[in-house]
Amino acid sequence: MEEKDRNKVSLKIQEGVPQPPNINPDVLTGISRKRRKRYSVNEFTDGILSGNRSILSQAITLVESSLPEHFRSAQAIIEKCLPYSSRSVRVGITGVPGAGKSTFIETFGLLVAETGKKIAVLAIDPSSQNTKGSILGDKTRMEKLSVHPNAFVRPSPSAGTLGGVARKTRESIILCEAAGFDTIIVETVGVGQSETSVRAMVDFFLLLMLTGAGDEIQGIKRGIIEMADAVAITKADGGNKIPAENARIMFQNALSLFPRTQSGWKPLALTCSAREKTGISEILKVIGDYAGYAKKTGYFEELRKQQAVIRMHDIISEYLEDSFYNHSEIKSLVPELETELHKGTITSYKAALSLINKYFKK
Amino acid sequence: MEEKDRNKVSLKIQEGVPQPPNINPDVLTGISRKRRKRYSVNEFTDGILSGNRSILSQAITLVESSLPEHFRSAQAIIEKCLPYSSRSVRVGITGVPGAGKSTFIETFGLLVAETGKKIAVLAIDPSSQNTKGSILGDKTRMEKLSVHPNAFVRPSPSAGTLGGVARKTRESIILCEAAGFDTIIVETVGVGQSETSVRAMVDFFLLLMLTGAGDEIQGIKRGIIEMADAVAITKADGGNKIPAENARIMFQNALSLFPRTQSGWKPLALTCSAREKTGISEILKVIGDYAGYAKKTGYFEELRKQQAVIRMHDIISEYLEDSFYNHSEIKSLVPELETELHKGTITSYKAALSLINKYFKK
Repeated sequence: MEEKDRNKVSLKIQEGVPQPPNINPDVLTGISRKRRKRYSVNEFTDGILSGNRSILSQAITLVESSLPEHFRSAQAIIEKCLPYSSRSVRVGITGVPGAGKSTFIETFGLLVAETGKKIAVLAIDPSSQNTKGSILGDKTRMEKLSVHPNAFVRPSPSAGTLGGVARKTRESIILCEAAGFDTIIVETVGVGQSETSVRAMVDFFLLLMLTGAGDEIQGIKRGIIEMADAVAITKADGGNKIPAENARIMFQNALSLFPRTQSGWKPLALTCSAREKTGISEILKVIGDYAGYAKKTGYFEELRKQQAVIRMHDIISEYLEDSFYNHSEIKSLVPELETELHKGTITSYKAALSLINKYFKK
Repeated sequence: MEEKDRNKVSLKIQEGVPQPPNINPDVLTGISRKRRKRYSVNEFTDGILSGNRSILSQAITLVESSLPEHFRSAQAIIEKCLPYSSRSVRVGITGVPGAGKSTFIETFGLLVAETGKKIAVLAIDPSSQNTKGSILGDKTRMEKLSVHPNAFVRPSPSAGTLGGVARKTRESIILCEAAGFDTIIVETVGVGQSETSVRAMVDFFLLLMLTGAGDEIQGIKRGIIEMADAVAITKADGGNKIPAENARIMFQNALSLFPRTQSGWKPLALTCSAREKTGISEILKVIGDYAGYAKKTGYFEELRKQQAVIRMHDIISEYLEDSFYNHSEIKSLVPELETELHKGTITSYKAALSLINKYFKK
């Protein structure tokens, strides 16, 4: 089903119901890599707020960790950073395979970094093991950007299901913002459920497409185009310039057929070339224009508030489903009922009720 | 949030956990309208299977009822009808306000009915009180179709939230199929969450659009265009013919930019006029072509099986959330936490955990 992908069983239940952090912030955290200092929550927070990238990086490691003691420290750090976050523009970037996402982000990121602004690049890649185009896994990528003093490039958290990865990325954004990064890029591979999660944590969503995009477009999920605030046709250079401009016009026409976004913003189609460094500053300008527009209407702030509330409800849904589907009786009954549903010998409603009855009578 | 509308609190918990039907099918059902016979479950089933439209209509009333005793009878009838269902083509139809959905459906339905096929029209309209274009509420609509011997037109179930309405429509489809209707139309208003529900219960999804569709298109939700198996530009008559053809070309171009549907089917753009009765039989043919194509590839059958399984999981999610959000402590805490989230003084994760802890310690 393309319309309603179930994003089930996402939060790990590691020690029964997780407890909100309630620890002494001066106690050392569990991070204990060889020859690396163990920081306390306060040291972490101070380090992040002073813009120390090494400490930021270790704090994100803590956020990504699945150990319970790390979880508690991480939550305490996030809480302390929270008042200093929310000052960036968050941009989600996805694209069809072959669109050159990392090359684009490197070029775009260097442009931002060289104006003196600070840019952080985070990645969500729930399917890195299964897709050819794994993002940020290749350490040779974004060579220049990753060593730029104004940039921070962080590969995808490797473990966990999508819900978990989305939470980690969302929390890493808070830490990056507290560390003074004013542009946050969240990159996804464009193949799955992750785009909805990313759309729900960013201010602006950019889709990278290719000219023609015949077979390539089959690599992305339906519905992504309608999520975009802008579509950029990449590799608009050399002999590809005219086809790229034609593709841009087609996309601009298509976008004009869509209903307006919730913000009232009209999505734009653009072209760019990372190789020739053309069209990149225009995209930066469009993002700036959007931020200016949305801040003026109040939508920018409003969306973030909405996102925070929606996220709370999403976490609850994930947790409830996780608890339900991990129930031992449910676990063994689900395949049986799915078989019956396949045969058409039971209604979905009756199948659901029989599971619900089992669960609530436990 | 347009990307992730929360479809929460949908199933009514009326008497704790509802019980699967377990009643004597010969006992009379609770239906007791004045001067109307009370049928038993078996009488209902026999009546439906013999194609008795009055009994079908009363059975749907039972399905739509929110009384517990009706619920049990209805489930028993559905179960008995289940082996005789699944023989139709189910078509979801939505459109921008003003596209003339009911006029289209009347013309389309008469065309089907006059070939000797049996057509049923059901509606999902969760927002009928709030929208100008309430569907099927106006009894003067579909005048000819609703009295045609081969047609059955059923207005929207009026009560309940979307999840409930979707369940009722899904179960009404089963009854209509058992009564021998081979084309089932499910109509929606195109403004909200209902399209995803409808897409998940039909084989083919048709979107009705207008030429230009400037302001009208703002009335529909983003993402709907990418759900369509076909887009029809309505009112392609008189001086509107050429603009309609131009709009068709634009939509066909736009559709070609989208990734293929899961079925592999390439969505088509068409024009039609209900007034001049042009293009209607072409749309019927496209639906037939799709059904032929999808049956050949096995996707037709596969999608229905997937839909049944997904539906079971959706019902479970709805129930879990309903149970969660109706918990008295949760109910009073949610607004407080939402306020904190608005102020940015708490993370979504911590807010969610504090509710989860409350719920599971009850």
